[in-house]
Amino acid sequence: MVDDAARDTRRERRRGRMGEAGSESSRKPNYRSLKNPFLPQPIFSDDQVASIHDTALRVLEELGIKVLLPEAREVLARAGALVDPNTDMVRIGRDMVAAALASAPRSIHAYAGARARDLSLELGSMTFLAGSGAPNVTDLERGRRPGTLVAFEELIKLVQHFDVLHMLGPCIEPQDIDNRFRHYAVNRAQLTLSDKFPFVFARGTPQVDDSFEMIRLARGLSEDEFRSGAHCYTVINTNSPRQLDIPMAQGIIDFAKAGQVLIITPFCLAGAMAPITVAGALTLQHAEALAGLTLAQIVRPGAPVVYGSFSSNVDMKSGAPAFGTPEHVKATLGAGQLARFTGLPWRSGGGSAANVSDAQAAHETQFALWGSVLAGATVCIHAAGWLEGGLSVSLEKLVTDIEALQTVAELCAATPGDDDAIGFEAIAEVQPGGHFFSAGHTMARYRTAFYEPLVADWSNFGNWTQSGSKTATERATGIWKRTLADFTPPAAAAATSGLLDAFIARRTEEGGAAPVS
Amino acid sequence: MVDDAARDTRRERRRGRMGEAGSESSRKPNYRSLKNPFLPQPIFSDDQVASIHDTALRVLEELGIKVLLPEAREVLARAGALVDPNTDMVRIGRDMVAAALASAPRSIHAYAGARARDLSLELGSMTFLAGSGAPNVTDLERGRRPGTLVAFEELIKLVQHFDVLHMLGPCIEPQDIDNRFRHYAVNRAQLTLSDKFPFVFARGTPQVDDSFEMIRLARGLSEDEFRSGAHCYTVINTNSPRQLDIPMAQGIIDFAKAGQVLIITPFCLAGAMAPITVAGALTLQHAEALAGLTLAQIVRPGAPVVYGSFSSNVDMKSGAPAFGTPEHVKATLGAGQLARFTGLPWRSGGGSAANVSDAQAAHETQFALWGSVLAGATVCIHAAGWLEGGLSVSLEKLVTDIEALQTVAELCAATPGDDDAIGFEAIAEVQPGGHFFSAGHTMARYRTAFYEPLVADWSNFGNWTQSGSKTATERATGIWKRTLADFTPPAAAAATSGLLDAFIARRTEEGGAAPVS
Repeated sequence: MVDDAARDTRRERRRGRMGEAGSESSRKPNYRSLKNPFLPQPIFSDDQVASIHDTALRVLEELGIKVLLPEAREVLARAGALVDPNTDMVRIGRDMVAAALASAPRSIHAYAGARARDLSLELGSMTFLAGSGAPNVTDLERGRRPGTLVAFEELIKLVQHFDVLHMLGPCIEPQDIDNRFRHYAVNRAQLTLSDKFPFVFARGTPQVDDSFEMIRLARGLSEDEFRSGAHCYTVINTNSPRQLDIPMAQGIIDFAKAGQVLIITPFCLAGAMAPITVAGALTLQHAEALAGLTLAQIVRPGAPVVYGSFSSNVDMKSGAPAFGTPEHVKATLGAGQLARFTGLPWRSGGGSAANVSDAQAAHETQFALWGSVLAGATVCIHAAGWLEGGLSVSLEKLVTDIEALQTVAELCAATPGDDDAIGFEAIAEVQPGGHFFSAGHTMARYRTAFYEPLVADWSNFGNWTQSGSKTATERATGIWKRTLADFTPPAAAAATSGLLDAFIARRTEEGGAAPVS
Repeated sequence: MVDDAARDTRRERRRGRMGEAGSESSRKPNYRSLKNPFLPQPIFSDDQVASIHDTALRVLEELGIKVLLPEAREVLARAGALVDPNTDMVRIGRDMVAAALASAPRSIHAYAGARARDLSLELGSMTFLAGSGAPNVTDLERGRRPGTLVAFEELIKLVQHFDVLHMLGPCIEPQDIDNRFRHYAVNRAQLTLSDKFPFVFARGTPQVDDSFEMIRLARGLSEDEFRSGAHCYTVINTNSPRQLDIPMAQGIIDFAKAGQVLIITPFCLAGAMAPITVAGALTLQHAEALAGLTLAQIVRPGAPVVYGSFSSNVDMKSGAPAFGTPEHVKATLGAGQLARFTGLPWRSGGGSAANVSDAQAAHETQFALWGSVLAGATVCIHAAGWLEGGLSVSLEKLVTDIEALQTVAELCAATPGDDDAIGFEAIAEVQPGGHFFSAGHTMARYRTAFYEPLVADWSNFGNWTQSGSKTATERATGIWKRTLADFTPPAAAAATSGLLDAFIARRTEEGGAAPVS
């Protein structure tokens, strides 16, 4: 949510317009900084975890990983890796990996556009991100369509509005903007509409340099100040199995040099790009993630890296990826064990393969979510809005998933268990056959006792029918529309537009920067 | 699922009719006997749990519980309780509760109609039940309507078909049958269509005696044999706050005498029938559950009792009950701590307040489900199909929820983490840029590696659109219809119909048995 004054203003307007109940609530839960209260759930024994780690080291030492970028091969070779010049295969010794794990920070302070939006990325903290990287956007009013800048900006506004989404992300690809200039528009939207921690695509050094400069301009940072703190992040995907392509390897080098956050995520779909077993997929994932973070630590010891996991399975009949399956949950739980073995902050992946925001979408999304929660993931990407295994982001599903994330956030709050909460006197006050509605114990707490739903409708069947028999997905349309209509960007963010526009105008005149592939 | 031969036959028919993929699978997961692999998640400290227990004892000792049945007051008084003849309030000493907790069994062997359907009810085991007690039934073909015997029988068939539903339950109330004869029809349906553990309503001794006799007839048991094992169960709901009505108190006495399972469940909606705090609602719940199980243990020490919890919250604006809320999850986690404090098997409650099988329904149901799983509930009632906070059972939601239950059941299976599962050789076999589809490691496992979905559709958007753009709920219609069309009752169960019909004819001639209220 945005700051209190703006929220209260909107509440007033809503109340005036719609006469909504509940506007008098004084409940102000803190969803901005979540500590995971759940005991991490293992699926492997400690010996098995050590064995997976050891096998991943063998994979890197004996089999190696193909690195397509010459600069990255040279960096690794200088640090002791064995490079086969004919195959570009790089074999990385376990001593190199051990050194990298020793120098990688256990906790990353992520600087957002306002200190109240800063994040501590470490084991035990929990952050959620909307679905990212989708080519398409969909909603019930306008249908499913390729991503545009307008749709991207709408998603940034929605992500900004809900505190339970902790970072920005490249929710959809704005394909109406030429790819030489797209990063300007995407960064401008993030920096002027939001004060949350932004994302930068690693699509080659020229675009990355542009993006870093925009963040420095927006945040008022010198180059040295920028490099001494983490002000943005990228996601590095290896090309499983065992390949690191040119833009990804370049991204590791560029972000590590600049001290910006690298989330290094193999995408190991068991049975397709990875072994069919959960343990096998995780072994490959672990090897590839260790290779990436080793490269980063060689470039700059202490560079902020997040161990990445997004291992699920495919449908063995069609090859289609699946999410929220038992195998996905297990892989996430196992990944949590491997991440804790390394001690590093780590990311998981949510999502659903459903084509529409329905019961399947909700069930798959929530299974993936619980996998992340019980695995102790620091960063859960694709936690809201992701459909079709990432081919679209749904505005309605974003809203219904945010309800689920807010429910998890509520579970992070302590449950009072003192004498006052136990309330012997309240029980004594109400006679058999009576009710607690007017008990003093109730009156003192009723405004703030319970979570107030965002989209859930608890009215009875008759009232619900009279209101149009709308599903949660249909009701969600009104919520995202109202949120967008009421949106005001944070003043400090909006104020950066002049500086950014001048930079963009100059760089546009210079021809922009094409992505590297 | 039914036995293998019948299933294979139906698979053949389906394959012939519909050309479905996947029919060649040899995957046969065991969903019949689940051990919960998850670490129990606490919300209270051990001291707080002890304090809630102690306060509940104070409630029973100092405030008491109103018991409307004279026989129950007499039983309790003979055992040392203090009865106020003017108010019918019964004060129960902590010594009586301690004796009851000492004599109640830690493990209950529940005898079903076939030994393969028997259940062990104890801490650590996990069973799921469909939604129960609804006045209405709903499906997309026939709409929402009052429950009938035909609809009740359909639900029994569906529950029988899916292994992940472990017991029968009174899913809906067949209101087209006169209530003097309804229990005959309900019991006949359970005993002739299913071999799972059956439910009997505690609606007065005459109906209970009839029901026990029908079970003895169907199972071929003498009265002594019946009384020496648990062959059915009932649910006792206290009238929170602090009241035990006539049929419920009579049910405790009748079932305890007969050695049949009592699930003693206060229904403590925080803010309405219970204090507004989670700790307060659980304190009242604990007191009432302890009162009920104490009465049972006085009647027959060692009588099989299941500690019951179904505490959630209400919407403080409307008073409407809510489920799958953060407060519901927390109450369930706290109830698990109290149940483990007693050492007894215990029940939780799932469900949703949504009016239709949509994303809200799925999210609320799954939150309630995870509450139960992470609390270590032995019996999770209302885990599938429950809508409107229990006012209807949806056949489509039954199917989509069963997918969720099957996913949890899959998580109960161990995840191999040995060298063969880790698969170094498989990783070595597939070169960078390759895939694992045809690897030997994959070929040896692909038929059985992954859960096969019941209703989830993982096809891409184009194929899904061509297939009619159906939501999971819409697809579920075809699944329940096919399951009912293909249904064959277990032969041993079907064979009991003659004996039961003769009994029913005689008792009908005698006028049946009206419920006691």
